[in-house]
Amino acid sequence: MSEYKTFTTDDAIAFADKHSELFGDHSKLSAEEFGDGNLNLVFRVENDKGTSLIVKQALPYARCVGESWPLTTDRARIEAEVLKMHRRFCPEHTVEVRYFDPVACAILMEDLREYRILRSELNAGKKFNHMAPQMAKYLANTLFYTSDFVLSSENKKAEVARFLNPELCLITEDLFFTDPYCNHERNNIEPSILEKAKSLWHDDALKAEVAMLKADFLSKPQALLHGDLHNGSIFIDNETCKVIDAEFGFFGPIGFDVGTLLGNLLLNYLACPGLHDAKDCDEQQVYLLEQTEQLWQQFSENFTDLMSRETQDPALESSLYQRRFLQQILSDAIGYAGCELIRRTVGLAHVADLDSINDAGKRAKCQRSTITLGRELIMQRADLSNITQLLNVVRYQQAD
Amino acid sequence: MSEYKTFTTDDAIAFADKHSELFGDHSKLSAEEFGDGNLNLVFRVENDKGTSLIVKQALPYARCVGESWPLTTDRARIEAEVLKMHRRFCPEHTVEVRYFDPVACAILMEDLREYRILRSELNAGKKFNHMAPQMAKYLANTLFYTSDFVLSSENKKAEVARFLNPELCLITEDLFFTDPYCNHERNNIEPSILEKAKSLWHDDALKAEVAMLKADFLSKPQALLHGDLHNGSIFIDNETCKVIDAEFGFFGPIGFDVGTLLGNLLLNYLACPGLHDAKDCDEQQVYLLEQTEQLWQQFSENFTDLMSRETQDPALESSLYQRRFLQQILSDAIGYAGCELIRRTVGLAHVADLDSINDAGKRAKCQRSTITLGRELIMQRADLSNITQLLNVVRYQQAD
Repeated sequence: MSEYKTFTTDDAIAFADKHSELFGDHSKLSAEEFGDGNLNLVFRVENDKGTSLIVKQALPYARCVGESWPLTTDRARIEAEVLKMHRRFCPEHTVEVRYFDPVACAILMEDLREYRILRSELNAGKKFNHMAPQMAKYLANTLFYTSDFVLSSENKKAEVARFLNPELCLITEDLFFTDPYCNHERNNIEPSILEKAKSLWHDDALKAEVAMLKADFLSKPQALLHGDLHNGSIFIDNETCKVIDAEFGFFGPIGFDVGTLLGNLLLNYLACPGLHDAKDCDEQQVYLLEQTEQLWQQFSENFTDLMSRETQDPALESSLYQRRFLQQILSDAIGYAGCELIRRTVGLAHVADLDSINDAGKRAKCQRSTITLGRELIMQRADLSNITQLLNVVRYQQAD
Repeated sequence: MSEYKTFTTDDAIAFADKHSELFGDHSKLSAEEFGDGNLNLVFRVENDKGTSLIVKQALPYARCVGESWPLTTDRARIEAEVLKMHRRFCPEHTVEVRYFDPVACAILMEDLREYRILRSELNAGKKFNHMAPQMAKYLANTLFYTSDFVLSSENKKAEVARFLNPELCLITEDLFFTDPYCNHERNNIEPSILEKAKSLWHDDALKAEVAMLKADFLSKPQALLHGDLHNGSIFIDNETCKVIDAEFGFFGPIGFDVGTLLGNLLLNYLACPGLHDAKDCDEQQVYLLEQTEQLWQQFSENFTDLMSRETQDPALESSLYQRRFLQQILSDAIGYAGCELIRRTVGLAHVADLDSINDAGKRAKCQRSTITLGRELIMQRADLSNITQLLNVVRYQQAD
């Protein structure tokens, strides 16, 4: 293929067939497109024995709320390369990319059809004890092995340039750090919480902290991030989690990936009173705080172990430095978690955890809690020196 | 010219003649090479009326202490592009690049023959009251206008990639942050201070702080730095300073440029007792501390003014954030100044301020002071919240 064109199902079949040895009898292939069509085409290609692969093709535009704007198809390269790099360092929990075609902007990858999306499962009140330890391992391995602890400075600089990803970073810069703190037309605020949302627009102390978090997002290329590690980017079954959708990947602050996921667990926690009846709510909240605690504890243990065993730069071997580095990750992560709570409530892109709460009164109450807790996390992040203190803030806020 | 070859004086004349309208009668040109030949060839090309320009050509190797190793000629591009960018934002104090040839790796630039090198002048006990305010302006303008306050994130990312400069950054990474803190063969330590130097190799608290400063040097691309702003990179006459030699330029922490220059003023201050008799020493030290104070105060005022007037990103407009940002620059700068004191005393590249002290006993005493003050600055940098506190540490240490 010499130039980009959007795939038909026949194109997707031909693409999968050409780049995979899996299928055997080529005449028995079929395909269906099942993406939402806003950003990508997503095809499942399978043979008559039920063996299947996914073909994901980036569209040269994004559609959102009826509007359409151009968006680089280079994000398919970023997604494929981030997933390949992350799989190198955590094969158990990263979806497998089989082939990437830079002209068609198409990725052939493992089909996770037996898996479910973590967000839907949590919203339905499901519990998975393997979630936190596995995601802790994914975060520690992918972030450590792409950091200055391991990469030579020359190699790191080249990798930073290979993953600049300016267009998708700009989306995050705007939606995370700018829009929610001003009266921006992209914001999506329910009228019932408008007054609460407006309190963010003139909160100088908060805006100073958010500015610091944004400045780090712009200029702290510590490791190759996933860049969008929310509950919808994680597939799960009864044994394993797998991470997908890495098109927002770039070199940024380690706390951003950790904090995005922490924030998504806390979003679900705060939505529980609207999603479940009282007894189920209590159980689910206990479960979620256990997972939150484990996610940080095990990330912290894994990352500390890697720093002590695998650091390549002698100047970064100081254990005192390494402890401080980890402390800074926690503080950054708490700040980014707070931003995630706020932007998912008042910004353009909401989450089903909150939006699927049918009772308008309960929904507004949950939304108000996310704003309040989000602010607390951002403001207190430098003072919370361990996960227990973070959980106490969450519990205290919930009781408020 | 289709491939690189080292220039003869005739080549330098032809190059200058081709790319300048200055010279008039082309038959009356002459040239002399007057560089030290370790890294670059430097020619002065002039006509019979005394009009002159400099041709600087990067050699594909570096020579130091008799050894020779390959070094990218791409540093000529970096030097030319950094100087052009800095001149855009501070034309008064940046040497003018007239032309850059990427094949010959040669720069045609303004001749500063009427100027002297700041280091030699300070070592000779000269005083220039315009030095600090002019360098404060250079630092504030060049660093602010290449930062996230002004550049769009897309533009900034592209510029970061254009100025990666891995080979020359590696030299700084090694010489500044690694070698002095271990028994490295590149170190250059006078036997009389060996015990003092050794104390750095097992100082865990110090090594943790130096690791933080190195990590920021690797992963904090705040602005386009000069990257080597010592007293030998500054030309001065009775009215003006001009900055040269930007081949170490890259996007790094703003405090690095500020701190390197602060460190060089303090190096000269600590060398005074070895360079001058008692009365001249006192006068020169008073002058140097005044300049140090002014350098920070005026940088701080200029940078604050620019942040409040010229910030392009609304999310970074918070004045509370801007005050904290400046505080962080000071703390970083004090740390890097401390590193400069130490590495110029025990590392590979010394400075004439110390090495030209003839009396061995005085020289050793001055060298011990730079190590002691260097360590204090690195350790106390987060606690020194204004320039007066910094100067008090310097005075206290000197009296010690």
